[in-house]
Amino acid sequence: MVAMTSTMRLVSYSRLGVPSIGVETESGILDIPEAASRFGRKYNVGGHGFPATMKHLLRWESGIEVVQQIVESFENTTPTERPMVYEESETKLEAPISRPGKVVALGLNYRAHIEETGREVPDFPVIFCKFSSSIVGPDTSILHPKVTKKLDWEVELGIVIGKVCRNVAKKDALDYVAGYTVINDLSARDLQRGDVQFIRGKSLDGLCPMGPCIVTTDELGDASGLELRTKVNGIIKQQSNTSDLLRDVPTIVSYLSEYFTLEPGDVIASGTPSGVGAARDPPEFLKPGDEVELFIEKIGYLRNKII
Amino acid sequence: MVAMTSTMRLVSYSRLGVPSIGVETESGILDIPEAASRFGRKYNVGGHGFPATMKHLLRWESGIEVVQQIVESFENTTPTERPMVYEESETKLEAPISRPGKVVALGLNYRAHIEETGREVPDFPVIFCKFSSSIVGPDTSILHPKVTKKLDWEVELGIVIGKVCRNVAKKDALDYVAGYTVINDLSARDLQRGDVQFIRGKSLDGLCPMGPCIVTTDELGDASGLELRTKVNGIIKQQSNTSDLLRDVPTIVSYLSEYFTLEPGDVIASGTPSGVGAARDPPEFLKPGDEVELFIEKIGYLRNKII
Repeated sequence: MVAMTSTMRLVSYSRLGVPSIGVETESGILDIPEAASRFGRKYNVGGHGFPATMKHLLRWESGIEVVQQIVESFENTTPTERPMVYEESETKLEAPISRPGKVVALGLNYRAHIEETGREVPDFPVIFCKFSSSIVGPDTSILHPKVTKKLDWEVELGIVIGKVCRNVAKKDALDYVAGYTVINDLSARDLQRGDVQFIRGKSLDGLCPMGPCIVTTDELGDASGLELRTKVNGIIKQQSNTSDLLRDVPTIVSYLSEYFTLEPGDVIASGTPSGVGAARDPPEFLKPGDEVELFIEKIGYLRNKII
Repeated sequence: MVAMTSTMRLVSYSRLGVPSIGVETESGILDIPEAASRFGRKYNVGGHGFPATMKHLLRWESGIEVVQQIVESFENTTPTERPMVYEESETKLEAPISRPGKVVALGLNYRAHIEETGREVPDFPVIFCKFSSSIVGPDTSILHPKVTKKLDWEVELGIVIGKVCRNVAKKDALDYVAGYTVINDLSARDLQRGDVQFIRGKSLDGLCPMGPCIVTTDELGDASGLELRTKVNGIIKQQSNTSDLLRDVPTIVSYLSEYFTLEPGDVIASGTPSGVGAARDPPEFLKPGDEVELFIEKIGYLRNKII
């Protein structure tokens, strides 16, 4: 039997052009809907069969629990009984959630980044948003938008909501978090600053790479103590640790839930550490040909090439 | 036969608690999926049956056209053959699109409103957004959010996108518009101004009433020349005409599509005319018990009570 850890790494992926959802295993991606069917259960979720997208899986109250049971059943099979596992070479990872209901983004949540921008530490990080149409997956090339000359990187811990969440206390907040991912909060600085409102400069097509997977909270808890970094063409530009977040994950989720109902599949970009291009001397911006590699410990790499 | 005009008024509604989509007729709401089935066609749209939500209907390339055919078939029936029509008393209207992929909002798009805010006329209206979780339907009571003391009204023409739209020319822009609705861009002025970024003050739960229907573009064209107004407790607060929009619908759609891919079901709130509460002397804000009635000519009324 293949040894597996108890945590789950959930992915959205496509194979032969057909999108699906899966769990990473040592031997490849275990297709969740196929495995659900293989292990002999008939599922009827909201009038349909087994959920085919991550958003639908998360909206299903027992979704994550059922996937855990499926993975357990899978672990009790032998390799010859595993036609529903696909090797990396056969699959293409997609953004874990292609169209979240909302992407809530936070600004000014790491002290060293606040210092490099010359701003005051706010009572709570600035809240803004990115349109879900700006999301792209890992290993996807991003067309440099012709409307900006100042395209900048921002590595961020992404928080994925797993349950409807409204006015939750900090101590209960993690119950509403399905897991974590890596987000590149790519920013067109010229539009962001010119407009005052951030949305245009933060939401051009391609400006929200996300991936490679959602790591469920059972292993990561509040996701503190994770190294995170950005490399551009192999050179480290940002390097910090999620323990340096001024507002941690439970505080963020609790605070936001006072204002907005957070819904399954919603994603929160928790803010970026120092080292962004606009704050460098001289300033540096992304150009066609650049390769951006983000890393968060225990979650993985998110790589995109600008073309 | 019931006389019907050639335009269509598409609604999302629920009956006995079950959500569906329909077309307004003189005798009530014609349920679209039921009528599709009644008129003898088997539909398979993306692996499912007939679309059950407005977003799915709009995403289906031939969706609107098929609904037009269904309505024509319906018009050729006699009243006794119409079990799929439900009277107003049996149905509850919902927001035409409950969870758009995005709600793009524009600020400063009517001259008299720009003057009352004391701002300069911008090159293009300010772009911001409202979270789709803030959307509520017509005739829904809105809980006054306890986090604001300055809740304000804003009547706006809502533009509903019908096709994927990227870099379209102004002259072609209307081809991508499915129709129009009424939006109340309710705003918590204290949060909106305190934060600088508008999102929190614009997206509290309940702050985006929308409805009563989507009127298809075939009748309204570019939606110019429509009276629009706001009444609070029966007293007129805003009154203008969509011909006073500084940037008209084709210009808005074309401009936004240079920056973001607009997707079927996306909604654009095109800006509010003068007469908002914050600009009145003395300022006026909504309190529990107030009734807000928005009206746009040829689209209809959007009424909500603050509780």
